[in-house]
Order: sequence, then structure tokens, then C-alpha cells
Amino acid sequence: MDSKPESQQRPGRNGRAEPSNKDSLLGLDKVAKLAAQLRVDSIRSSTSAGSGHPTSSMSSADLLAVLITRHLRYDWDNPRSPANDHLIFSKGHASPLLYSVFKAVGVVSEEELLNGYRRFGQRLEGHPTPVLPWVDVATGSLGQGLPDGVGVALAGKYLERQSYRVWVLCGDSELAEGSIWEAFDKASYYKLSNLIVIVDVNRLGQRGETELGWNLDAYARRAKAFGARVLTIDGHDVAAIDEALTKAEQNRDRKPTVVLAKTIKGRGFSEVENKNGWHGKPLPPDMAQRAIKELGGIRNLVVRGPRPVLTRTKKKPDEPIKPQTPVRQYKLGEKVATRKAYGDALVSLGDRDPLVVALDGEVSNSTFAEEFKKAYPERYFEMFIAEQQLVAAATGLAVRGYRPFASTFAAFLTRAYDFIRMGAISGVDVRLVGSHAGIEIGADGPSQMGLEDLAMFRAVQNSTVLYPSDATSTIALVNAMANTRGISYLRTTRGAYPVLYPEDERFPVGGSKVLRSSERDEVTLIGAGVTLHACLGAGDILKKEGIDARVLDCYSVKPIDAATLAAAARATSGHIVVAEDHHPEGGLGEAVIDTLVEAGHSNLSVTHLAVRQMPGSGSSKELLAWAGIDADHIAAAARRLVGK
Amino acid sequence: MDSKPESQQRPGRNGRAEPSNKDSLLGLDKVAKLAAQLRVDSIRSSTSAGSGHPTSSMSSADLLAVLITRHLRYDWDNPRSPANDHLIFSKGHASPLLYSVFKAVGVVSEEELLNGYRRFGQRLEGHPTPVLPWVDVATGSLGQGLPDGVGVALAGKYLERQSYRVWVLCGDSELAEGSIWEAFDKASYYKLSNLIVIVDVNRLGQRGETELGWNLDAYARRAKAFGARVLTIDGHDVAAIDEALTKAEQNRDRKPTVVLAKTIKGRGFSEVENKNGWHGKPLPPDMAQRAIKELGGIRNLVVRGPRPVLTRTKKKPDEPIKPQTPVRQYKLGEKVATRKAYGDALVSLGDRDPLVVALDGEVSNSTFAEEFKKAYPERYFEMFIAEQQLVAAATGLAVRGYRPFASTFAAFLTRAYDFIRMGAISGVDVRLVGSHAGIEIGADGPSQMGLEDLAMFRAVQNSTVLYPSDATSTIALVNAMANTRGISYLRTTRGAYPVLYPEDERFPVGGSKVLRSSERDEVTLIGAGVTLHACLGAGDILKKEGIDARVLDCYSVKPIDAATLAAAARATSGHIVVAEDHHPEGGLGEAVIDTLVEAGHSNLSVTHLAVRQMPGSGSSKELLAWAGIDADHIAAAARRLVGK
Repeated sequence: MDSKPESQQRPGRNGRAEPSNKDSLLGLDKVAKLAAQLRVDSIRSSTSAGSGHPTSSMSSADLLAVLITRHLRYDWDNPRSPANDHLIFSKGHASPLLYSVFKAVGVVSEEELLNGYRRFGQRLEGHPTPVLPWVDVATGSLGQGLPDGVGVALAGKYLERQSYRVWVLCGDSELAEGSIWEAFDKASYYKLSNLIVIVDVNRLGQRGETELGWNLDAYARRAKAFGARVLTIDGHDVAAIDEALTKAEQNRDRKPTVVLAKTIKGRGFSEVENKNGWHGKPLPPDMAQRAIKELGGIRNLVVRGPRPVLTRTKKKPDEPIKPQTPVRQYKLGEKVATRKAYGDALVSLGDRDPLVVALDGEVSNSTFAEEFKKAYPERYFEMFIAEQQLVAAATGLAVRGYRPFASTFAAFLTRAYDFIRMGAISGVDVRLVGSHAGIEIGADGPSQMGLEDLAMFRAVQNSTVLYPSDATSTIALVNAMANTRGISYLRTTRGAYPVLYPEDERFPVGGSKVLRSSERDEVTLIGAGVTLHACLGAGDILKKEGIDARVLDCYSVKPIDAATLAAAARATSGHIVVAEDHHPEGGLGEAVIDTLVEAGHSNLSVTHLAVRQMPGSGSSKELLAWAGIDADHIAAAARRLVGK
Repeated sequence: MDSKPESQQRPGRNGRAEPSNKDSLLGLDKVAKLAAQLRVDSIRSSTSAGSGHPTSSMSSADLLAVLITRHLRYDWDNPRSPANDHLIFSKGHASPLLYSVFKAVGVVSEEELLNGYRRFGQRLEGHPTPVLPWVDVATGSLGQGLPDGVGVALAGKYLERQSYRVWVLCGDSELAEGSIWEAFDKASYYKLSNLIVIVDVNRLGQRGETELGWNLDAYARRAKAFGARVLTIDGHDVAAIDEALTKAEQNRDRKPTVVLAKTIKGRGFSEVENKNGWHGKPLPPDMAQRAIKELGGIRNLVVRGPRPVLTRTKKKPDEPIKPQTPVRQYKLGEKVATRKAYGDALVSLGDRDPLVVALDGEVSNSTFAEEFKKAYPERYFEMFIAEQQLVAAATGLAVRGYRPFASTFAAFLTRAYDFIRMGAISGVDVRLVGSHAGIEIGADGPSQMGLEDLAMFRAVQNSTVLYPSDATSTIALVNAMANTRGISYLRTTRGAYPVLYPEDERFPVGGSKVLRSSERDEVTLIGAGVTLHACLGAGDILKKEGIDARVLDCYSVKPIDAATLAAAARATSGHIVVAEDHHPEGGLGEAVIDTLVEAGHSNLSVTHLAVRQMPGSGSSKELLAWAGIDADHIAAAARRLVGK
């Protein structure tokens, strides 16, 4: 077979191009051959690796063959071109198909496909990750690619005004995930006509038939009810696919489009077609040989589809020019809630940096994200009460180079942990802000108290966890987050506490602040957020009793300031009280202790104060005392440590 | 006003009763007065507390007045009666209304309502929790009450064959949560005609209008598309409400019913009706006075509704009698995956205990929950790819006294963290099982690797975290979980490893096993799961070099065996290597270190081996070596510690 590009539409060097002319695209007869090639390559790659999902790839092969040759506008030699369409495999387990596509467009070699797939140290991972330049987000945890795509589409429609489209391939099984319906809901609310969802309805999940099987009408009713335009097709009829994708492109409905494609799992190889028991299994070599024969043998077509169209390069959204927003000044001792300071900080940051965008989960008047919304309404996205989509939209916006800050109550970010974890695998820079941390919130009770968030965020790969105690440090840390890679998290507090630091104080990520120290210090008191104020109070109590205490603000929980911790431990004979408004596991206390021990510090005497029982309602003061993390309890713990 | 029960239907002493006769129920004229009372009491309680959500309560007051007097079959004096209907406030912030209902049925006093609400040490918490005997599950994280209710309804329909109904009050804002649609999907899939969802569509969320406002048609289309029977009414017309609830009860459609009620937030007090800015705010005392006046003043009606009907008491589902399933026997040294042993254990446990039920998220052939499904199909619930509903269904089943085990990949339990956290607040005994832990899984790549699960589960209040290394201990720990309170978690491994323990070995929760020890031990090697096998390998390597190492199986990560850890640390001069197939934060390593330090152990020299970089695909062996948690790396770390 011809191994040269068959399409006459080859991308221009600069990635800028004209809209494609249909007549110049690959003919449907050749598209069908390409589909067979994609099936053969999906089989070859997974059989060579000894694992993978060939049958889930084969059901989608015709869809992808039509898409990449006749619809997807993509400059394969310039994956960073802002004009490219986006292609997201929400059904990430169909990676053999995706990588076969990459071979078909000539960016991955046959050698890599056969010897690199699922191998150690290679980039063709079991499920796609952005280790590959043509992959936007990691997928493989189902129900995430589409919500991420909503974020990418939001950027295109509202911020960049770029004409790129976002094509998402979903499996039918993943339509059981609620996050898919959060995504459809937001896609229709935001009128994302640039979002095209192709659902491969192959009827079979991992362990049997899906809930709805081939009931495409049921899927159609659901998608329509959630505001999508729905096209239902035979997913193996290339002409029908082509017609549907053309209609999807010609969208004047101000709605997302969903193409429901009835398909057959394992399509193209009669021995496995529509058979249960073949999910996630490579064909054994003998079966693979028969399959390849049935599919017409190995092909090495190289194809290209339409070229992208760069409509604008301006990234900054149109906004009325307004006077520079000054950083809010706080007086020392003035009581300011860190959640309020977050709002102030974001407004100021947004003024300097047009790439900063904000999102919130219907609590912007509590997190103070509403301050940003008031200042820059065009750069604010309300996600309503849908925390998974909140984080996914931030992920999609980050894919397009924006700097998203997404906020809700700390407790409710637990709703999105899978998205946060996957965001780390995607390598996106996403900033999350959790307000109303801990029992400090008081009367609302345990459902609203973030008491697991530090553990949750610390355990995320390459994450940064920040927990300011006052307004000044909040401003500094929000600014630092703008340039922080990976998943970063800011924990804010409901109540107002005194400003501790002058405005020129610096707060590097990974640092800490020694607020009280002397050469006579007998014990170190470590806090962050509300417990830092309790540590200061404890220091006052102890001082009156003749006990000098070093007080340390551990505002950077991860990375943590190992050097200052070690110096304090040495200076105070290893006597340390660490207090946190969090459950004892995985939070500040364990971070401090692990750091000191791993650094080789011996002779530690640590008292770890944390929320060890199930809280109820009450005032902040009552609850902090009840949990034993207020000034009195910290002072008592210190007294016991120093033997007084 | 009369303060005696107005209904002639008073509950019998034994909680057993006949179906109610409509004529004997409270008349609709008096129901309207009760609704006014519920509004007044919602205002009084929240104003007295200085916080709370009166306006969100007022929109639902007519719905609840009709429900509790004429439809909810509930013996208020016997909340544990299995015949009672269930009433779940998915909109938990309407707690003033719920507590006003409790006053109206005479189980909470006026004094408690006015002086106990949201106060420290009291049971009328800011959001409902099962501290109150009439509350099934904690709510307040929106979108959870309905999924929990699906679990309660599953028990009634499939396990108990009880005729109780599950009434769930939802807010309109929470319909943006994907979990609500997971719930509707499962409710229709399982034909839960015993589930009646009342949606209070008051149009206003916390910070403004909801996405769909008063577009009840849009909600109706969505609910219908998800398989529900939909009734749309004016939520302030008591006759219309009564008619709708009667229709909901007379359900022959084998579908859940959704009553969409158009309501007005703050209904009944003209100064706040349908006004933005009044979410979550108590009325100031002067406004409260005017409101109470407008609502006709303080009332103290005491009412009762229909009595429950106990149809059956038999809890064990009908199943063909089958021979006692023996506990699977394993040979020492035989390679068995702990996930496979989990399936074996569950089958055996299910045979002995008819209250054990299993659920899985469409991966039962990977987690081996399918073994249970094959043995006891009537006690198995397939939740498809909907992990939030998976955990919520387990929660609802636990409410009815069953012992649910819910499984999926460890990585995907992150999807349900908010539900797990809330399950702990609900105080339910729910057993969760995460398979495919860590990088050990190999080729599938990071999206499928549970690397945050230990941190996530440890941080849950009163949780138990178990991580067996072999089949024998898996069997023992699954049996232990059956009687474990709160949230318990079992972490299983993909690959097969040698059986280490004889069948009579005991594995108490909170224990550990010393697998190698001598008086000459120079270092302690601590592992669990796959890293225990690596520790044993390291012990062999070191032995050949003349270094004796103690090897400890820390199968109970929480609670952890502090005494054995301390003894090992003392015996080996504080030299400890702890290795875990998990990110370094919040897992086994921090648990070990924190425990030793808090116990006052000094002179520790700990090397903490964990997965510190982003993994890719590869074989188990390659990845364990890459992360530095295999036998060679553990041996090398031990060598460094002992200075050899």
C-alpha cells in the first residue's frame, strides 16, 4: 500500500491555514481502508504488548477514520498550534486506536506502536497521558474526558474566540457516571456549539451488557433533555458518519452536539464481534493473525485531514479598560478572614494577569470568588453545584494556557478527588481553593467542615498545599499559586483573625515563618491557619508562666520547610507541639513529624493535637476547645513536654 | 391552639398497624395551618440560633405538612420500626423545617427547638445527622440524600420485600450534581417504585438563580428521560400536593416517582419571598416578629400521620438452599492474588451471614466480587460505572441493617470520597474494597493505579484501613470487616503472590505480624501488601550478607499496632525501613512514623520508601524497581541504616 500521505491537504508550515475543501479530502472508500488499518494496528499493538483493549478500539475505528481524515482540523506537526481542534478520548482504554491514529497520521512509527505500547519508559502508555504532545489530558478514569472537554470548549467560545472544535470520544459505559451529565448540563448552559461528543455505543461493558444496551433512543432522550443536539447513526457506515460529523460542524443551534453511534464491539473480526468476555483482552497471536487476515492485512496508509484555521491570536478577552486594581492593604491586627483576602488577592492578580480565570461551585459569596466575578465577569465561570465539572472545567481551561482558580468549600472538593488525581496525571497547572476549613466554621456542623482536605491534597503527586493564617500571607500565596506547576491548593478559613504580617513580608512556597523566638525557647509550637493564632495565644500564656516558646507558621504544608523545622527542633530539645484543624491523619502533624524523622532528627518529643472525634455544631471557640486545639490546650501540651 | 394530636390515627404500641384510611387523616384546612406553624418554627429556631436556612425551609413547608400528616407512614415513637417509611432531607440545609416537623409530631420539644438548634453539645445540628433517631443519614453535602435513598429502597424492594416507601426531599440546586442522575438512573434500572422524590423548585440557590430557574418542564424532561414518572405541581397548593403524593403512592409503573413542586423561597413572609440574598440567613429578630405575625402567630399543633404497615419481618432473602460453602483453603507458598481471595472470602462469609450484600462498579470480574454474585445473585447489586452511587447504595443498605461490601479499583474510590466522608458522619458500617492498588498493576498506567487511597481512607473519622499481603490474611480481614463499625477499607493487589500464613493464623484489626525476627536483628523492615513480599526478599538478601532484619507485616494500617512497632524499633536501635506502594503522604510510612514518635520513641532512623514520581506503564517488577520499593532497594536502604 501507499505509505505517502494520501490527502492533498497537507498542513502549512506555520500552522495557519484555510478552511478545508471537502473535495480535496480523502475519499470514503479509502477512509474505510483506513478504518481497517486502525483495527489491524489496534490488534497488533495490544497483542504485542500482551494487554490492552483491542475490541473497544475496533468499535470506534470507523468513527475515527472519518473524523481524522475529513473533519478534525489538526496540524499534526504542530500540536501546540492554538488553531488545532482538540481530540479527547474520554474512553481512554481505547488507547490502541488512538495510537493507531497517531501512526496513520505519521507522527508515531510502526516500530514505536509495536514495541513501545504499554512498555516501561515508553510514551504510549496503557491509557493516554499528555506525555504525548497530541494528548490534552490523561484519561482512563471514565467520565472525565468529556467534562475536561467542556473546559477546553469554554476557553474557545468565551475567552479566545477561536474557532477550534472539541471532539470527544465517549464510551457508552461511562454514560453511567454522573460527571457526564454535569458536563452535558454545563455544555448546554454555556451553549457550547464547539463541543462535539461522539458516543461509541457498543453495548458491552467490562463484565457484561451496559444498563441501556443498544437502546439509543434512551440515550438520545437523556442527551436531548440535557440540552444537546442529538444525531443517531450506524457507527460503521462511513457515509453516515461523515454526514453526521458534517452536520455537527454546521451547528447553528448554540448547543453541543452528541453523535450517538450504534457500533459492534470487536467489529471487523467475526470471532469476537459483539461477544462478551473480550473486554480488555488482547487477542492471542494466532487469533490476531486470523483477525488481521479477515481485515485485509497490514496496511501503512499515511493520511492527513483538514488544516486548522487560526481566527485570532489575542488571548486576552475583551474587557472594558479599568484602572489598575491596587492590592488591598491590611492593617496589622485588623481582623480579616483569609477567604475574604482570597477574593481581594484574585481581583488584584486578575488585573495584572489576563490569563487568570476563576470558577466556583455556587458558593462564590462564601469563598469570595464573587469579587473576581464582579471585576472580570467575562473571565468567571459559574459551575453551580457540580464540583466534578468545576475541577474538570479548570483542567480544560489550563489545557488552553489559562490560569484557573476554582473554589468551593474545602469539604466539597472531596467530591472531585478523582478529577484532582487525574489532573496531576494530566500535568495541568490547576489552582484549587477550599474555604470553610475545619471545625472552625462552627454551627453548620460536620458535613460542611473540611477535615480531610490536607491529607487528600498532600497525597496528590507533585501537589502544593498552602494554608495561610492571615490576609497578608493569603495575598502572597495566591500570587505564588499563579506560577505554581501542577495541582496547587489553598486552604482558607471562615472566621476573621488578626493580620499578622506587614504587606512587604515574603512567603515563598516551601517556606515558613518564625513568629516568636528567643535563645531560651524550650518548646516549638507549630500551627497553620486558625491554629497558628491559637499557638500565638499559647505562647502568651506560657510566657506569663516563664516558658519561652518558639512559634512557627507552617503556611506551606507541602513542600514543607524542613530546614526551619529542624532548626526549631534542635533549638527546643525536640519539644514540639503541632496543632491542626484537621483529622490527625495525613495533615500538618504527620507532615511535620515525617519530615523531621526522615531528616534524621532524633530525640523528638512531639504532641500532635488534631480533631480526633466526630464534631457537631457549636461556636468556633467551643469547638476548638472541644477538639483540644485552642490556645489553652496547646499551652497545656507544651507545659507537659517541658515538664512544668 | 390545640396542642393535642389532631389526627385520629395514632400509632399502636407495637409499631404494627393497618393501612391508613384517608378519611381519618388530618383535613387539608388544618394541614395548611400546620404548614404555617412549620414556617414559623423554622424562623424561630434559626433566628434563635443566629444562623440557618429559614427561607429554604419555608419553600418546602407545605410539601412536608401534607406529607407527614397524610402520607408518610411512620411510628414516631418507634423510629427503629422496620415498617416505617423513610424520610430523607437531601436538602439538609432545610434542617429548621425538619426539626420543626419533629416538634409538630411531638418528639422534639419547643424548648429544644429554640435552645438546642445549632448549639454546642446538642443534637439539632446545623445539618441533620443520625444523632437524631429519626434521621437515617447525614446530609448537607448536596446530592447525597437521594443516592442514599436509592440504597434504602433497594433493600426494601429486593431484600426485605417490605412495603415501606422512601421519601426524599431534594432542592433544585442539587440537581446540578451528577450524583443525582446516577441515582435516577439506578432507581429506574432497579424499578424502584418505592422511591418518591419531591423536588422543591424554589428557583434560588445560594448566590442567585439556579441554571434552570422555574423551568419545571426542563427538569421533567430530564427526570423522564432517566426513567422516572414525573408529577408537576404547585408546591404551595396543599390539595395539589395531596393529590400528587397519593398518585405517587399508587404507583404501578415500576418506576420511581418524582414530584416537581414549583415553590417560592421564603414563602409566607412577603419581605423575603422570592428574593435573592436571603439564602442561609436567619431573619433578624424584628423581621422574625413581623414574619410570625404575617404567618398567623405561633402555633403548637401536634399531629400524627398514617401508621406504618409491617408486611414481613423476614430479613433473609429467598434463595435456594445450598450446601455450606467451605472457606477456600490455600497452600503455603501457593500464588494467589488478594483480590481473588477477597472473592473467595466474600462467598464464604455470605454463606454464614445472610445480611452480607455485595455491590460493584462494573469491574466485578477484576475485583472478584463476581464470585459473590454467582453464589448469591439476589444479594448482589451491580452499580455500573457510578462510584458515587456505589458507595451511596452501600450506605442506604447499611441503614436497613445489611452488611454491604462495595468494590471497585482503589483508584476509582477517589470518585466517591465525599460520600465516604459523609458515610462516616452518618455513622454507617460500610465496607469498601479497592483492588489494583499501586504501581504493582503495571501496564495499565497511572490512571488505574490507586496511589492516594490509604491517605484518603486514613483521614476519614473512625475508619479502619486494612491491607493484606496474602490470601489467608485477606480471608481473615474480610471476616473481621463484617463486624467492624464505621467505614472500613480493604486494599487488594492485582498480582498473585505466595500465601504466607497457615489457615488458622489470626489477624485481629489493629494487629501486625512479625514474620522474621531474631535477637540479633539490626533493622526492621515494614511492609504491607506487595511491599511485604519485597521486605521478605530484602530480608533474604541481607541475611546472606550477615545482616539480620526483622520483617513486619503491617496489615492493619489503621488502627496500627503501636506496641509491636515500638518493640521492633527498640530491638533494632530505631533502624526502620518502611516501604509502601503509595505516594509518600498519608499512607503506611507516615502512619508508622507518627505512631512511633507520638509514642515517645526517640533515636529513630527511618527510611521511608514510597512512590515519589509519576509512574508510567511497565511490568510490576520494572515499576517496583523504578519506584525503589522492591527487595533490592529495601535491602540497600537497610544496609545504609546499619552502616554496612
